[in-house]
Amino acid sequence: MTTAADAPRSAPHTATTETLADLSEGAVLGRIFPRLPTAAAQLLGPGDDAAVVSAPDGRFVVTTDMMIQGPDFRLAWSTPHDLGWKAAATNLSDVAAMGARPTALVVAIAAPPSTPVVVLEGIADGLRDCCEALAPGCGVVGGDLSASDALTLAVTAFGDLEGRAPVLRSGARPGDVVAHSGLLGDAGRGLELLFRLGVDANGVPNLDRANALKLSHPTEVAAQLTPVPPIASGPIAALAGATAMLDVSDGLAIDAGRIARASGVGIDFDSASLGDRIEVALGGGEDHGLLATFPPGAVLPAGFRSLGTVVAASASHAGMITVDGSPHDQGGWDPYRGWDGAAG
Amino acid sequence: MTTAADAPRSAPHTATTETLADLSEGAVLGRIFPRLPTAAAQLLGPGDDAAVVSAPDGRFVVTTDMMIQGPDFRLAWSTPHDLGWKAAATNLSDVAAMGARPTALVVAIAAPPSTPVVVLEGIADGLRDCCEALAPGCGVVGGDLSASDALTLAVTAFGDLEGRAPVLRSGARPGDVVAHSGLLGDAGRGLELLFRLGVDANGVPNLDRANALKLSHPTEVAAQLTPVPPIASGPIAALAGATAMLDVSDGLAIDAGRIARASGVGIDFDSASLGDRIEVALGGGEDHGLLATFPPGAVLPAGFRSLGTVVAASASHAGMITVDGSPHDQGGWDPYRGWDGAAG
Repeated sequence: MTTAADAPRSAPHTATTETLADLSEGAVLGRIFPRLPTAAAQLLGPGDDAAVVSAPDGRFVVTTDMMIQGPDFRLAWSTPHDLGWKAAATNLSDVAAMGARPTALVVAIAAPPSTPVVVLEGIADGLRDCCEALAPGCGVVGGDLSASDALTLAVTAFGDLEGRAPVLRSGARPGDVVAHSGLLGDAGRGLELLFRLGVDANGVPNLDRANALKLSHPTEVAAQLTPVPPIASGPIAALAGATAMLDVSDGLAIDAGRIARASGVGIDFDSASLGDRIEVALGGGEDHGLLATFPPGAVLPAGFRSLGTVVAASASHAGMITVDGSPHDQGGWDPYRGWDGAAG
Repeated sequence: MTTAADAPRSAPHTATTETLADLSEGAVLGRIFPRLPTAAAQLLGPGDDAAVVSAPDGRFVVTTDMMIQGPDFRLAWSTPHDLGWKAAATNLSDVAAMGARPTALVVAIAAPPSTPVVVLEGIADGLRDCCEALAPGCGVVGGDLSASDALTLAVTAFGDLEGRAPVLRSGARPGDVVAHSGLLGDAGRGLELLFRLGVDANGVPNLDRANALKLSHPTEVAAQLTPVPPIASGPIAALAGATAMLDVSDGLAIDAGRIARASGVGIDFDSASLGDRIEVALGGGEDHGLLATFPPGAVLPAGFRSLGTVVAASASHAGMITVDGSPHDQGGWDPYRGWDGAAG
């Protein structure tokens, strides 16, 4: 882990044209760390070989995700602040999906030496604003800074189960209510709009066209670029007795199929609960809502609404997704097969 | 966090020409996860949104580092197994430098879709073999798989302080013995040899020439490509009363300067303890030995040998490094300034 131990905690530089190559690693870190939020669980923060974080109940939840310029984001569409926000939000959502409260992040960033320092400052601000908005008390306890050709963010997030059992994907039982907290389909629709209309005549991502989309379709574009997952819903669902839960990252149908397969059941969605665009609701990825199952008759916690029911399935039909009782083709995307606008 | 929940735990494919693009993400993960070691501290492993890891004393140590093809490694020099080994070793070393016992890793890998699956299998084998050799019981509890142009490994490592206080950089006191466990200068010499002789006539890294170097200079090249940091020395030093400690990643002089600056002292090396090539011992990076300070008269634990003494320093001289009492220019490298063979 690299540290800012050698650098002043605030630096005198203000020029926006300064690049990473102009400064030492210590000086860059000295510009970034003061912008990052301190974690309430931090026992030892940046400045040594490693950080030390509190784990009050003797366990910690951990998840990691990498975002890379090109496959995962385009700088013509996302601001640095957007990138920091999304990198935090998607990881916090995985922690929340276990029923845990997010406590801390570590963040590794690789960037070309020609990157303006203000880009890293913007990423830091996005990380901070996301933590403060969605998981107050969660902060950045350490990180790493490297050189690369493509801007890359690797975030690892931690959470506290507060003495509870983790909510797994495998606990859904026939008769359980299937409920969801968050948006459905907006992020996928936003990405489809960006790919179709946020590009120039040659299909290259274009800043002006993306900005026009942000005005014409603010909900969908924001859902894609700066998602606001319902982080607080995770621990609330656990306290309310959720039997299974996950973060909906690859689309409702695919992710419901994961709960159903892990639990050896089927899931039947009620079409009336899926809005006007059923295929968009079922197929759109990157919404980062929480899909959970609750025992029959449970009072759903605030933020969750019922979408259907867990049904019994024979071993060969475990994982089957139906809508009003009719089988649904799950479709979806794969990171090595690219985005499929039609299916996902 | 992506999971192998959808994939069979062992897959029938054996062709070495298969690439990531030929398989679904789930199938790739199904090929990798069975090769990875299970952590003794794992309470919940791969297959859900996040893992759950034991933290018996209510705290955990965490560090993160990213390795990127190009700036950090070349595929003509390092095998996939080497990359997995080094990614684990360098992170385990940061955990050990706190006086902690490594417990678990999470590993995010990004690779071009054209990457043969055997490359990822080799990385997994390297991660496993390094954990088994250097930190038995430590394993991989989760990960992420993404697409990228450059092969990228982001490892986050965890450790257990077993009830002890972490050993910081800031605890060295005048009169303390400065001691080191591990190699000094070999990794830097190995990199210098690779840059000078492991390339073709155009300066491009070359497999055959690197292989020749592995035969002619096995110690130095192995120290660079597959370091064996003294992980067990970390907790042993803590138990022996180490007052300060760090992982020597940027060269002995620079890293000693970090302890000295954090502690408000100076460090004087005894030239007779630094071997025949003093500048190589002081300046070579990436050795990943442990540099620690112990109270005067302490019996040094196995593996450590004395290199010098902590000396008092005025505020303006804190961090000063001397050799036999004479000031030493620290030199060294910076990730955004490239490798400087002369200084580091």
